[in-house]
Amino acid sequence: MPELRKDPIIDNWVIISTERSKRPLDFKVKAEEKRKDNCVFCKGNEHKTPPEKFAFREKGTLKDNPGWKVRVIANKYPALKMEGKAAREKVGLFEKMDGIGVHEVIIETPYHHEDLNSLSITNIILILKTYRQRYLSIFEDKRIKYILIFKNYGIDGGASLEHSHSQLIATTIIPKRIEEELKGSRKYFSSVKRCIFCDYINQEIQYKDRVIEETEKYIALSPFAARFPFETWILPKYHSAYYEEINDDEIFDLAKMMKEILFRIKNKLNNPPYNFIIHTAPSKKSSTKEWPDLDKKYHWHIEIIPRLTKIAGFEWGTGFYINPTSPEQAAKILR
Amino acid sequence: MPELRKDPIIDNWVIISTERSKRPLDFKVKAEEKRKDNCVFCKGNEHKTPPEKFAFREKGTLKDNPGWKVRVIANKYPALKMEGKAAREKVGLFEKMDGIGVHEVIIETPYHHEDLNSLSITNIILILKTYRQRYLSIFEDKRIKYILIFKNYGIDGGASLEHSHSQLIATTIIPKRIEEELKGSRKYFSSVKRCIFCDYINQEIQYKDRVIEETEKYIALSPFAARFPFETWILPKYHSAYYEEINDDEIFDLAKMMKEILFRIKNKLNNPPYNFIIHTAPSKKSSTKEWPDLDKKYHWHIEIIPRLTKIAGFEWGTGFYINPTSPEQAAKILR
Repeated sequence: MPELRKDPIIDNWVIISTERSKRPLDFKVKAEEKRKDNCVFCKGNEHKTPPEKFAFREKGTLKDNPGWKVRVIANKYPALKMEGKAAREKVGLFEKMDGIGVHEVIIETPYHHEDLNSLSITNIILILKTYRQRYLSIFEDKRIKYILIFKNYGIDGGASLEHSHSQLIATTIIPKRIEEELKGSRKYFSSVKRCIFCDYINQEIQYKDRVIEETEKYIALSPFAARFPFETWILPKYHSAYYEEINDDEIFDLAKMMKEILFRIKNKLNNPPYNFIIHTAPSKKSSTKEWPDLDKKYHWHIEIIPRLTKIAGFEWGTGFYINPTSPEQAAKILR
Repeated sequence: MPELRKDPIIDNWVIISTERSKRPLDFKVKAEEKRKDNCVFCKGNEHKTPPEKFAFREKGTLKDNPGWKVRVIANKYPALKMEGKAAREKVGLFEKMDGIGVHEVIIETPYHHEDLNSLSITNIILILKTYRQRYLSIFEDKRIKYILIFKNYGIDGGASLEHSHSQLIATTIIPKRIEEELKGSRKYFSSVKRCIFCDYINQEIQYKDRVIEETEKYIALSPFAARFPFETWILPKYHSAYYEEINDDEIFDLAKMMKEILFRIKNKLNNPPYNFIIHTAPSKKSSTKEWPDLDKKYHWHIEIIPRLTKIAGFEWGTGFYINPTSPEQAAKILR
């Protein structure tokens, strides 16, 4: 049973995932898993994965069979599981609870050779719609407080399978950095009655030197205090706290922006590993009491982190980052 | 001029280190820098490094010449510099200041083939004494609030040079994670009037299953909410907030513990890259007003993180970690 454990000193939760338990020599990535010829995510190998939870597929095709364009399955080695009780248990100084949650894989294409940034806009739209569907569907469960959708691209980006995919983790707690954003947004709102992200975007549009790209509805920029070289945020220029409220027009515009930015990162930075994470508000159903009026205060966005530097002990251990590329320089190169 | 920039949303400082400014294609580690035959840290190449700031050396030998056992130099590409003003500057939502600070390299041995965990206890003692001397010396400058001493071992640990060394970064701000520890310790102390680390250690000694090793004065354990597989903390069993107050007896005991734990990590985990970081209290001279009575509340320690897993986007972006090895299992293997 996976466990959530809280560090008693800094009050942060960690997933201890015993299902994925590893002995020292198991840590090397198994090379055979990455080979194309036995890839379980490829079209035709649907029976080799856990059953399908959702898919966009051609009319008349059957679940767990070819014909899909985007396919969602449970992670074979889930970090969290839906069984168990959400109650916290105290042992002296320590606090833990069952690791309740969902861990899914979103297979972005049936074809092994395709990448998110080589896919057509039509395909990217289906992926972004799949994200929306998963938020809406999983938030039905009131135990779930947060859903995190993210992508690891490349071995050094943390991907253990080469086939283009993103992941979803739904949990009973709000991840630390998101909570910090919620607190920061709340503090700003209570002082000036405006969304801090909206003000941030307006200021950046005015200064221009950290703006990478604008579409009708979205902006891509290098954040002022970027932690990583070429860190890029994509934000809606309209105010919205919840990714799941995105409409089809907005998805079309976002798909164009995503394709363009990922293409530039691949092209101008020599195809680096990268991660992106959707930062969105926690569940309306289960977090409104603790976080009232987030619809006014928070602003969903996507953070993209190319993995160009080895993150060193300094950064890991302290949360204090050294970035060797100024955001202004990064924006200039990606523009 | 390096800059410290604050993220306006989550209130976290980042170093934008323009001195180390890199263009996209400069990010690959230069292989020639790692070769033994032109290593600038080796005995005999002292003239190829910035001048010596401190050293333990044989009697009668000269600064910036052979004869040293541990040698401290300025980092050739410092992330921070001592020139500039500590005043904060506001630009709209954003806040920044000059990147004032110190960035040093502690060369742990004159010999290229030696490792921290193959060095004799006598040598490790000199390294630990060097750390103490640097804390004491650099804290004389009242602009400095925090000194961080850490080691990156192995390319994947973030080391750009193979020759055994640790690093020191002194800054005008307290790094985020340290500040969180200070807050957590303060909160606990104000409720029960005891040091949370002392209670933590006592509880672990009682439960035993996460204890890796004990010496007379130190304990090595797997933290209850370990973020990383085989994460290991070394803590003094006696109460002390300030590493720089360590005495020679304690250094002798700590040297034995460090050697033993680093040897086991190398031996049982197949010589992985690792990082360690000394977590100690901020400057007495410049932080007592903001953080009174830390001598009672905080407890210095060393955190060691073997780099066995690729840290994925999920963890980076959220501060929410998935650890595939339970601390109890890790302690059992390292015991």
